[in-house]
Amino acid sequence: MFAPHRTNFFESQTKMVEQITLYSAKVCPWAHRTELALKESGLPYKRYEIDLANKPEWYAPKVNPASKVPALAALPRLRKLAESYVLLEFIADLSASTKPLLPSDPIARAKARFFVETVISKWGSVWYGIQNRGDDPSGILPAIEVLQNLLPAEGYAVGDWSIADAAVTPFIARAFVSLKNDAGAYAEGSGKKLYETLQSDPKYARLRQYYADVSGRDSFKETFFEDYLAERYIERAGTLRAEKKAKA
Amino acid sequence: MFAPHRTNFFESQTKMVEQITLYSAKVCPWAHRTELALKESGLPYKRYEIDLANKPEWYAPKVNPASKVPALAALPRLRKLAESYVLLEFIADLSASTKPLLPSDPIARAKARFFVETVISKWGSVWYGIQNRGDDPSGILPAIEVLQNLLPAEGYAVGDWSIADAAVTPFIARAFVSLKNDAGAYAEGSGKKLYETLQSDPKYARLRQYYADVSGRDSFKETFFEDYLAERYIERAGTLRAEKKAKA
Ligand SMILES: N[C@@H](CCC(=O)N[C@@H](CS)C(=O)NCC(=O)O)C(=O)O
Ligand SMILES: N[C@@H](CCC(=O)N[C@@H](CS)C(=O)NCC(=O)O)C(=O)O
Repeated sequence: MFAPHRTNFFESQTKMVEQITLYSAKVCPWAHRTELALKESGLPYKRYEIDLANKPEWYAPKVNPASKVPALAALPRLRKLAESYVLLEFIADLSASTKPLLPSDPIARAKARFFVETVISKWGSVWYGIQNRGDDPSGILPAIEVLQNLLPAEGYAVGDWSIADAAVTPFIARAFVSLKNDAGAYAEGSGKKLYETLQSDPKYARLRQYYADVSGRDSFKETFFEDYLAERYIERAGTLRAEKKAKA
Repeated sequence: MFAPHRTNFFESQTKMVEQITLYSAKVCPWAHRTELALKESGLPYKRYEIDLANKPEWYAPKVNPASKVPALAALPRLRKLAESYVLLEFIADLSASTKPLLPSDPIARAKARFFVETVISKWGSVWYGIQNRGDDPSGILPAIEVLQNLLPAEGYAVGDWSIADAAVTPFIARAFVSLKNDAGAYAEGSGKKLYETLQSDPKYARLRQYYADVSGRDSFKETFFEDYLAERYIERAGTLRAEKKAKA
């Protein structure tokens, strides 16, 4: 009944984007998503680190009224744009003809978007409580199962690396740094223990392989600062645990 | 530096979609989004009403494991897909060459997506409390201001009617039905009062015009069941207010 369609982006005469600037912060998983996509796209961009503890005065009024990272400017036409997933789709649209970051088949595109929506809503609803309020780290296991079940038997979320992988990788990476270093508000020892399970239990083989695949790419190596994060998490975990003890 | 791009979807040889089935429910704003987009797309589809109070046994296992509406099947290749915003993008991808439901310019596409993300996160975070817990209805005003500020001086969210309009219209429409009939958990009279303000205050002229534009379309008239909703809301408001009184 319907003919199938294939995306195709054509170059036109006027220049649309002359200069991309990304406002980012090493700690932020949402910002990390956009850095992964920009690196993979091959589009040149300038990166500007925003110190979230001490944001420049001009940041909210000139760049992002919500005062969050990531935000992106694509001059001359786009002075500011925020929301990481919106930025991922934008980057994929921009680079569709030079370096596709989403499949062209509508069904595969839909699966990519469903993957992001489903994994992130599950992950996001529990991880914050684990890391910051001290919920039991094993609360992340259902989200990991959702992720594993949506992944194909091997490779990336929907074929070639795509913005779907960009969207989830920063969260897995940060959870691993936290657990490995036992650096969250949770009970001491419980992070490391879960980390070991995730590294050795055959049940989580698919997660390990997926993470090896996504984190083995240059885009990841160039945008992930493990030591920096570990240091921050350890420091913050100390504070959170001390606060908890003081209350108890 | 970069050449601009223009989306373009091409028909190919194999049939991709022979039959679309939408699982919907008249009450549900998320499902309503997808009905608006399907109507506007011109793609033929079958609509299947799901009684949310009495879901068919086969619904979760066969159609949507999350047991929610909307869900869509696009046979032969896509047996099931859920999440309303994912479905909107899918419908736009499917109909891109026959009836575009998103602009082709990447910047305009990004603006459409940012509009949805921003309006809905603001709206969703307050409306539930108003309707179901009895928060003051005027709590919706900041969300209305966000909407008004993101809309252009006239017309739809980003030029021609798009999935951005599909995504927000059902929420405005349902708020209007609730307020007009004073049919929520909030204090009696406070809904109607806000409704009158929204209908007359020059401050909300942009909202009124926008709503007139989106609700004047056939796609809306064919998919919105005002009397049905009003009846349901009035009944439920009675229950909620009685529960509140019993507790007080
Ligand atoms: N929904 C946003 C979330 C972005 C976000 O929450 N960013 C955090 C850092 S991870 C932020 O900038 N928060 C403001 C602050 O820390 O002052 C997105 O997807 O881009
Ligand atoms: N995030 C989902 C939300 C869908 C949703 O919450 N649907 C509700 C009805 S409005 C539902 O089916 N709930 C399950 C139930 O009522 O049993 C989407 O965007 O599609």
